[in-house]
Amino acid sequence: MKKDFAVIGLGRFGGSICRRLSELGMEVLAMDNNEERVNEYASIASHAILGDSTDEAVLKEIGIRNFDHVIVAIGDNIQASILTTLILKELGVKHVTAKALNDYHEKVLLKIGADVVAHPERDMGIRIANNISTSTVLDYLELSDEHSIVEIVANERLGGNTIIGLNIRARYGINIVAIKRGSDIIVSPLASEKIWLGDILIVIGADTDIERFRKKVIED
Amino acid sequence: MKKDFAVIGLGRFGGSICRRLSELGMEVLAMDNNEERVNEYASIASHAILGDSTDEAVLKEIGIRNFDHVIVAIGDNIQASILTTLILKELGVKHVTAKALNDYHEKVLLKIGADVVAHPERDMGIRIANNISTSTVLDYLELSDEHSIVEIVANERLGGNTIIGLNIRARYGINIVAIKRGSDIIVSPLASEKIWLGDILIVIGADTDIERFRKKVIED
Ligand SMILES: Nc1ncnc2c1ncn2[C@@H]1O[C@H](COP(=O)(O)OP(=O)(O)OP(=O)(O)O)[C@@H](O)[C@H]1O
Ligand SMILES: Nc1ncnc2c1ncn2[C@@H]1O[C@H](COP(=O)(O)OP(=O)(O)OP(=O)(O)O)[C@@H](O)[C@H]1O
Ligand SMILES: [Ca+2]
Ligand SMILES: [Ca+2]
Ligand SMILES: [Ca+2]
Ligand SMILES: [Ca+2]
Repeated sequence: MKKDFAVIGLGRFGGSICRRLSELGMEVLAMDNNEERVNEYASIASHAILGDSTDEAVLKEIGIRNFDHVIVAIGDNIQASILTTLILKELGVKHVTAKALNDYHEKVLLKIGADVVAHPERDMGIRIANNISTSTVLDYLELSDEHSIVEIVANERLGGNTIIGLNIRARYGINIVAIKRGSDIIVSPLASEKIWLGDILIVIGADTDIERFRKKVIED
Repeated sequence: MKKDFAVIGLGRFGGSICRRLSELGMEVLAMDNNEERVNEYASIASHAILGDSTDEAVLKEIGIRNFDHVIVAIGDNIQASILTTLILKELGVKHVTAKALNDYHEKVLLKIGADVVAHPERDMGIRIANNISTSTVLDYLELSDEHSIVEIVANERLGGNTIIGLNIRARYGINIVAIKRGSDIIVSPLASEKIWLGDILIVIGADTDIERFRKKVIED
């Protein structure tokens, strides 16, 4: 079943969501109170309308409660962001994702019923810090507070050895779920697979075990 | 070996990077030309200094070329961001990550030598759009243009079956590398493992195969 989305606020964040949802083939209603922005997205979204989302009548008129998911991407005007979110939840919109500028803003948004609060600058800052704090971890997926999947570049100490030869699973309690080698991906490599220098190992495990492995084998 | 970082611009993005790097135990020099921001980060970063990063003499004086990685997190003042990046590369800083506001800004930053350009609002917008376009995919890690690791919520059709019973690997060419069940994580589940309704399956494979699986088994 195809879902209907509405994006309110077409700045860099809201605009990017609108563009990507459209690329993914979703129906997207784009709304902004700035005419230039509306015109910019008229050819990208399914519908682009000029309107002030703090005006309940406007939201009712477009039948906003029939949308499955509304994204409130108003940034700098905290009051408009909060008021819009409040009206959306009162009108019965099931999923509302709202952008917050700071922790106080986030708290208020959650209190009035926002289902998800996004902090693009803060969250991307955390991701980037995680990635650059070690030159060996490229990207990661957090599975829980204590488990992750991370990409680790194989150094000289790993290159030339087989997975079983390194005994990584028994020694560190972590698993190599895939290897990126140039443009190839080896999914679920066999224990006999030889690691090459520069391979990117996709490793799953407890954060502490991954860190122990990284520190001992990669950065020692 | 511990690396030294400098973060120039302590807005939400730069501030978040500074905070997270400090949490990770890195040495971080924080710099801003706004005294309030400098005071705010004095207790978080190793050093926090007041200064204008477009002034080459200031950067030289603090020995910026001895830092392993400098992050230019100046947002709205595109000219200051470009000039700062230019000076950093001319002074020989090896890794410069710079924040861009738009595609034009990005192009210029790359031309003058920025090593990585970050677009927090745009990139977080893409991530969020990917996640909300399907209610079944929670988060993902892109391994290549064509391969990903994604989190998929198990529905009634999967719950109660074993992995081997569903024959997922043979039928769809994808692999379950882990299962999140409440606060538990089952890494590399055996083929005999039974999937529960609501389990989060961590699946690796080609995007087309994952999509085929998702469409057929989850959203049909
Ligand atoms: N009440 C409102 N109704 C509709 N649109 C609004 C309302 N208030 C603000 N907007 C729009 O929301 C968009 C995002 O606002 P913001 O102030 O965050 O702009 P921005 O800084 O360009 O965005 P970003 O931070 O995502 O890059 C703007 O295009 C603005 O016109
Ligand atoms: N030439 C400069 N030298 C040092 N710091 C600067 C310079 N120009 C701007 N800054 C600082 O960079 C920081 C980020 O600038 P920006 O205009 O993006 O603020 P922001 O919108 O609060 O940040 P963000 O978009 O990350 O939330 C500010 O704290 C600002 O004082
Ligand atoms: Ca903004
Ligand atoms: Ca973690
Ligand atoms: Ca800004
Ligand atoms: Ca992809």
